[in-house]
Amino acid sequence: MDLIIDGGTVVTMGSKGIIRDGTVVVENSHIVDVGKSHDLKRKYHGHEKINAKGKVVIPGLINTHQHAAMSILRGYADDYPLKEWLEKWIWPMEKHMTGRDIYVGALLNAVESIMGGVTTVNTMYHYAKDGSEAEAFAEAGLRGVVGHVCFSWRKDEDRKALRELAKDWHGKANGLIRASVDPHATYTVDPEYMKELREITNELNEKYGSPDSPIMWHMHVAETEDETEKIRQAFNISIQGGVVEYLDSLDVLGSDIVATHCVALTQRDIKILKKRGVKVSHNPISNLKLASGISPVPSLIKAGVTVALGTDSSCSNNNSDMFGVMKTAALLHKGVHKDPTLLPAEQALQMATIEGAKALLWDRQIGSIEIGKIADLAIVDFKKPHLCPLFNEISHLVYSARASDVDTVLINGKIVMENREVTTVDVHKVLGMTEKTKESLLARLGEENKQ
Amino acid sequence: MDLIIDGGTVVTMGSKGIIRDGTVVVENSHIVDVGKSHDLKRKYHGHEKINAKGKVVIPGLINTHQHAAMSILRGYADDYPLKEWLEKWIWPMEKHMTGRDIYVGALLNAVESIMGGVTTVNTMYHYAKDGSEAEAFAEAGLRGVVGHVCFSWRKDEDRKALRELAKDWHGKANGLIRASVDPHATYTVDPEYMKELREITNELNEKYGSPDSPIMWHMHVAETEDETEKIRQAFNISIQGGVVEYLDSLDVLGSDIVATHCVALTQRDIKILKKRGVKVSHNPISNLKLASGISPVPSLIKAGVTVALGTDSSCSNNNSDMFGVMKTAALLHKGVHKDPTLLPAEQALQMATIEGAKALLWDRQIGSIEIGKIADLAIVDFKKPHLCPLFNEISHLVYSARASDVDTVLINGKIVMENREVTTVDVHKVLGMTEKTKESLLARLGEENKQ
Repeated sequence: MDLIIDGGTVVTMGSKGIIRDGTVVVENSHIVDVGKSHDLKRKYHGHEKINAKGKVVIPGLINTHQHAAMSILRGYADDYPLKEWLEKWIWPMEKHMTGRDIYVGALLNAVESIMGGVTTVNTMYHYAKDGSEAEAFAEAGLRGVVGHVCFSWRKDEDRKALRELAKDWHGKANGLIRASVDPHATYTVDPEYMKELREITNELNEKYGSPDSPIMWHMHVAETEDETEKIRQAFNISIQGGVVEYLDSLDVLGSDIVATHCVALTQRDIKILKKRGVKVSHNPISNLKLASGISPVPSLIKAGVTVALGTDSSCSNNNSDMFGVMKTAALLHKGVHKDPTLLPAEQALQMATIEGAKALLWDRQIGSIEIGKIADLAIVDFKKPHLCPLFNEISHLVYSARASDVDTVLINGKIVMENREVTTVDVHKVLGMTEKTKESLLARLGEENKQ
Repeated sequence: MDLIIDGGTVVTMGSKGIIRDGTVVVENSHIVDVGKSHDLKRKYHGHEKINAKGKVVIPGLINTHQHAAMSILRGYADDYPLKEWLEKWIWPMEKHMTGRDIYVGALLNAVESIMGGVTTVNTMYHYAKDGSEAEAFAEAGLRGVVGHVCFSWRKDEDRKALRELAKDWHGKANGLIRASVDPHATYTVDPEYMKELREITNELNEKYGSPDSPIMWHMHVAETEDETEKIRQAFNISIQGGVVEYLDSLDVLGSDIVATHCVALTQRDIKILKKRGVKVSHNPISNLKLASGISPVPSLIKAGVTVALGTDSSCSNNNSDMFGVMKTAALLHKGVHKDPTLLPAEQALQMATIEGAKALLWDRQIGSIEIGKIADLAIVDFKKPHLCPLFNEISHLVYSARASDVDTVLINGKIVMENREVTTVDVHKVLGMTEKTKESLLARLGEENKQ
């Protein structure tokens, strides 16, 4: 579709900075022009027009850590000690999740993501052929890096799932979907298996990937302070130094890795992340809610590590509002370091856009509004009391806006939400499916408990 | 108006707990019945009906710390060191604010508050007869405790303003507005003046207040760790112990005080707050943004102090979304104390409702949904992806809902917003006034800088 998004403020997050009374021109899936309205609107007068007056056009937000399917468990259990939360609540319920449930949960998350201006989601869950996150994202028109999570206790299953996922989905759905290899964590994936997963990643990349469309690697790293102790307990190996140093000793680190959380890092860990080009996904809301600790984000950024943002799943956040994550990230590090200049608004917005794209090795195509990039865009309606008066668009985007202020969203140049109406799937129907799936899961759990 | 709000889930925050398929009956300004829909809907079939199916009815949220007028400066300056932020940005702009500007800023805030389910706001700013926060709140139909902020450098002006405020507004607008005496802080109000303000409060209470409708006292207390040092510097007095202990030595503390922030407290300070019945307004977002420190909220609650929640002004938050404040409060203390069981969702919701009412000595009339209380209610629409599926309403309200999910709001039994349309003022007009006021303020600042 040929479109001109005209008359709004364009926050490009790229070389053109902020363009007031600006215009973005989209042809098919790509941005073909960006500039002042008076320079462009006549030239493209035949294009279908979206009036963006009073609105702000931003690159679609990029959520670098999610377990989309878990949206089906939103609010099921909160405020418990971590061990009890996982062992008594989350895992017993997840055990009953079928491919169909995974698909429904991911579809719910896809709709929520789109309605909050999120155009790309990096998600880690189980791949099943009879219902998957990839299928849900493709249906909703959401861009995603979709992984299969790997554990030592199910290597054969994982090997099969990884190959199927890459074959079935990598580069599919008009390029919306990419695949990733997702070792769960250092204490659930033994060292030998970790090395094997690196080999599998390389091998799958040769077969299905390309430098412009790589198969990624996505894992939880150093989420809590006791992680080295957990590795020792799990595999009876003695570890010197931090978790990243341990991973480096296995020779698995590389620039295709999104390391999520990175709460408990040593100084040496930070240097290694930089040296190996590993990207960090910072999930401040999840880290606070699970009381995991606080990631040394200012130190990571200072060291030159790419730090992006993530919501984590709806069990530990509990929504997928990246505006909330931007605000929390910007606030938290000021507060804990007692420095109000840390992580200013613009940096938070970078982390949610172009840095997110870099983290997913997708920044040549998405993450900023520039000629030649794919049109993944969110249009935010500023004609609201909490976004008035207007001194500074970026301040409002980070400190005051919410997911619900997003008015219209384009992914791959296609309008997936217009005036808050999702165009790709029937939201009302998704909500109905979600409630039914929840009831069914509770019934299955009840049956098991009776036995 | 006689109303029946029927078919929703009623989260009473009172003795009846949570009522699913419930009903709230409102006659004139009061709640006259609360219960199951099948018990009540026939009895009140003549009342006008609000269908609350798929929605959750909660007591209107109570924001215990705001500077409503400052909404006019939202996003004007962020991410600066505190001193520079105040001295170079905020104060030079505030100097130009007239009564009219205060009124416009407060009207903007009143609209934003109502649209976020906030029905009562405790606000501290300058009282001017030619335009005030009280006037704006009354016009919008928002309940408020409206103060005049006092400084040692303008005692005569303050004395006059306090008397005018109490006379003009206390108990006015159908009881929506109450007045308060607002000493700015310990380091800007000298000890003698602090004592005089206590006398003025008592005197105004005798003249205009009553036990059921007291004139309050609202001040910043222990916002930063260097506050005792600031007092020493300002008034050349030597202080032993903490800021609260110092205030107690002046014999000014009492149960009518809302002490905002309370970041830097000693153990003795906490004991004194409890002993004197002083209430604490916790403003986690502002404290983080200004890097003030983190209030020892779990210790305060353990000591039996009433702790409520506040947004603070739009210069340090930057919106007035009490859902955001609830979530941040619930997250922050878990995170910094590394205990995921701290400040569970229900406690956060209490702090934003019934505890807020207690803090303002208004809990006999507002803060929960109970027969005989005033009908200050917010109806939250749960038919949205980020509020599905539904396992637990309170989890969703605190961890996933946002101001924009509030659908309908009643204050004093009057519908002030219905289906997100504010009924009392023209929001579009308010936004226009706001932009004009901003432009005018910038012009006045520009003129001054030219001179």
